[in-house]
Amino acid sequence: MKRSVKEIADLVQAQLSGDGAVEVTGVASIESAGSGDVVFVEDEKNLPNALRSGAAAIMAGEFASNVADSKPLLICDQPRLAFARVAQLLATTDPVAGGVHATAIVHASAKIGENVIIEERVVIRNGAEIGAGSRIGAMSVIGEQVRTGRDCQVFPNVTVYPQTSMGSRVVIHAGTVLGSDGFGYVRDRKTGRYEKFPQIGRLEIEDDVEIGANCTVDRGALDVTRIGRGTKIDNLVHIGHNVQIGEDVVIAAQTGLSGSVVVEDNVVIGGQVGIGDHARIESGAILGSGSGILSKKVVRGKGVVFWGTPARPLKQYLKELAALARLAKKD
Amino acid sequence: MKRSVKEIADLVQAQLSGDGAVEVTGVASIESAGSGDVVFVEDEKNLPNALRSGAAAIMAGEFASNVADSKPLLICDQPRLAFARVAQLLATTDPVAGGVHATAIVHASAKIGENVIIEERVVIRNGAEIGAGSRIGAMSVIGEQVRTGRDCQVFPNVTVYPQTSMGSRVVIHAGTVLGSDGFGYVRDRKTGRYEKFPQIGRLEIEDDVEIGANCTVDRGALDVTRIGRGTKIDNLVHIGHNVQIGEDVVIAAQTGLSGSVVVEDNVVIGGQVGIGDHARIESGAILGSGSGILSKKVVRGKGVVFWGTPARPLKQYLKELAALARLAKKD
Amino acid sequence: MKRSVKEIADLVQAQLSGDGAVEVTGVASIESAGSGDVVFVEDEKNLPNALRSGAAAIMAGEFASNVADSKPLLICDQPRLAFARVAQLLATTDPVAGGVHATAIVHASAKIGENVIIEERVVIRNGAEIGAGSRIGAMSVIGEQVRTGRDCQVFPNVTVYPQTSMGSRVVIHAGTVLGSDGFGYVRDRKTGRYEKFPQIGRLEIEDDVEIGANCTVDRGALDVTRIGRGTKIDNLVHIGHNVQIGEDVVIAAQTGLSGSVVVEDNVVIGGQVGIGDHARIESGAILGSGSGILSKKVVRGKGVVFWGTPARPLKQYLKELAALARLAKKD
Repeated sequence: MKRSVKEIADLVQAQLSGDGAVEVTGVASIESAGSGDVVFVEDEKNLPNALRSGAAAIMAGEFASNVADSKPLLICDQPRLAFARVAQLLATTDPVAGGVHATAIVHASAKIGENVIIEERVVIRNGAEIGAGSRIGAMSVIGEQVRTGRDCQVFPNVTVYPQTSMGSRVVIHAGTVLGSDGFGYVRDRKTGRYEKFPQIGRLEIEDDVEIGANCTVDRGALDVTRIGRGTKIDNLVHIGHNVQIGEDVVIAAQTGLSGSVVVEDNVVIGGQVGIGDHARIESGAILGSGSGILSKKVVRGKGVVFWGTPARPLKQYLKELAALARLAKKD
Repeated sequence: MKRSVKEIADLVQAQLSGDGAVEVTGVASIESAGSGDVVFVEDEKNLPNALRSGAAAIMAGEFASNVADSKPLLICDQPRLAFARVAQLLATTDPVAGGVHATAIVHASAKIGENVIIEERVVIRNGAEIGAGSRIGAMSVIGEQVRTGRDCQVFPNVTVYPQTSMGSRVVIHAGTVLGSDGFGYVRDRKTGRYEKFPQIGRLEIEDDVEIGANCTVDRGALDVTRIGRGTKIDNLVHIGHNVQIGEDVVIAAQTGLSGSVVVEDNVVIGGQVGIGDHARIESGAILGSGSGILSKKVVRGKGVVFWGTPARPLKQYLKELAALARLAKKD
Repeated sequence: MKRSVKEIADLVQAQLSGDGAVEVTGVASIESAGSGDVVFVEDEKNLPNALRSGAAAIMAGEFASNVADSKPLLICDQPRLAFARVAQLLATTDPVAGGVHATAIVHASAKIGENVIIEERVVIRNGAEIGAGSRIGAMSVIGEQVRTGRDCQVFPNVTVYPQTSMGSRVVIHAGTVLGSDGFGYVRDRKTGRYEKFPQIGRLEIEDDVEIGANCTVDRGALDVTRIGRGTKIDNLVHIGHNVQIGEDVVIAAQTGLSGSVVVEDNVVIGGQVGIGDHARIESGAILGSGSGILSKKVVRGKGVVFWGTPARPLKQYLKELAALARLAKKD
């Protein structure tokens, strides 16, 4: 889509300096920017590169407010954020035709909202509801009674087990499995064999959640697994049964949350973190990549970084690492 | 399905106290139990909550044998186990119609047993055999010469490479890949390039195995990868080529077993454990979450917990952690 | 396919001792070799077993050059490598019929090369190009403008996001997702909510790359994620956006590379390794399984093994482990 720099400045509430009539069609990095591209600069030292680049316009912080250049500048408080919004705005719509593809199998009892796109070979089972403006990717299987809100996007080859619900604007990347059985067994003391504990609860995903590719999120055993509004989850993450995740939580790739873990709002979790069952990560805590939280542990501290296994406050952990290095040197 | 409490007591060999005519239709947690639900209590201190709950009936241990209440009580030796069996008993059957779906592509040479359900778009290749009562989920691809026993359940979007065999009552969750090529290459000393070592063996999965979502289990390089009877595997687990896993083993999420690892019967492996190639975990050992076992290492000790990387007996590891914390404090 | 031992000796440039007319049809391990099989021996002490085995012929190193036996021997410099090549040579071709399967949905603008096999239910979107001799597995989804070179093999249930390109002879195992959105968000300082940073770059995979099952490889955010020629990647590996991987790199299962990581040529990375964003692993370094590399860290040392979190040279790490064990004993 084509927009003038003036239109863009208005839309993201930036202060425009330079020619507002310049037209832009996309966003790019400074290194690869072409003549229709917007770039952004967060750090003053990168401004000269942006000015020298092939870009049509530059979004920058206050530090650039007195710069005069042939390229129009859009000065704003959070240039990275404004850039992200402009990218969204300029994104070209996908050329695939809308509607329900002829090869999709949609159960007669399923409710399909307005302007929904159901791609090739999708299976939608009885009682499912797909909210207006949503798109379900090719080959995905949407189980019985699954519900999505408005404007969701499910990529191809996703499997959604029955009864899972999603809010609005939820994005699920390819290959992810939602609502699978949790890992719960009871061992018969007489035979030594494991028998399956019922995994008959549900999975609820709230608005604006994004989940990466090839993740697995289990339904509750008897009750509900919940992922709160605005939470963002990277690829290959495992979320066990009965887990409760709050709002605006970030979880990087390959992290695993065991059953019944509670993660409160605004927690940041690095990659390959492991959290034992029934642990609680309190609001605003930060778990460094690769750290391990023991079962039932409570981790507390807004803005405090924890690291290691078992996870300790970062400062303490670094002291221990340093002490160990000194000790080994002495020996 | 509806059952009287008396019927249930008989089926799980519980001692009934109270009105045996009460009818139940499902199971639930104490918190969410409604008027047709059975709940269970393993720990005496939770009994008052169960009695106050909306449940129709309670399964409990011996400690409740003298309790008199308006709710019927089912006293049994292993209440959690009995509850799991009652859940199985009351589970409603899935409403999807049986038989081979019109959109499935089943090779003329494939043998499909009685009462098999083949869901939408399944591909079953030549020479495959699906045992009586099994169900293959939508979009799954069953390769040449794959064999399943009776009453298996393969969820959607599963890929089974050729020649894989499964016993009876095997459950494979969505997105899992069975029998893929192992990770074996030979480096040419002259060119420095890697060439593929043959990955032409098979994968054999024995009776009553359950494998979670988005796992990967590789075929043997030249011989067989084997998963023994009753073993339970969580989501996103990786099993390398030539691995031999015994019976009644439990493996939690995101754990990885490198090539040629041997895991004997009754081993318990936590989440995110890594086991190096050719290691052997002997019968009954327990590997704590996140621990790492070196290549060729033998881990021995029935009921002994190992932890850390490289994994040590838990007691020793905890002593080391404590010593390190003290050392850091002193410095 | 049937070949004489003499033909094989010529093809892999081995020195033949014994009856060159013996015919072989496959390869096997020493333990399971049958009458048409070739086996190999790298280590002199295994030669007696090979001679006693059911094999038809033996590939061995120089140490066997003076052995006289009823079985023909093929003496070569790199017997494991020669064995791998013979396996390739003898591999039977797959019986599935060629061409585009009737159930595949191929966009009119897509270009399909000669001798391509498109399996059941594949979706190929507009502008895609599949190079001559390539095979696309059942249920896979090939996005808009995706390009593959010659003789690629994509297994079933793979999702390739738009614009991804592959060179020639690339192998992608089942369930893998290529070109998915990277994990990039901008937090609005005013609302505390995360908004999506554009993930509109591409993924480029060079010749002779093999990627295992259920992996995830993200596209660049604004530019390109790249995997260099000859690199081999195991199952369940995560490659973040903007990552640059060199040539002939080996990455074992469940390892994760965060955004913008650089891995130079000939690096060897064990399983379950985590590499923080913007780290650089220089040419020829070796990262032990389970080790963790901090963000922005530069790891340097051809042939040097690094281990632990944060990763240190192996020698130093082992000294630290020993010092800690001694300290705990003293306490």
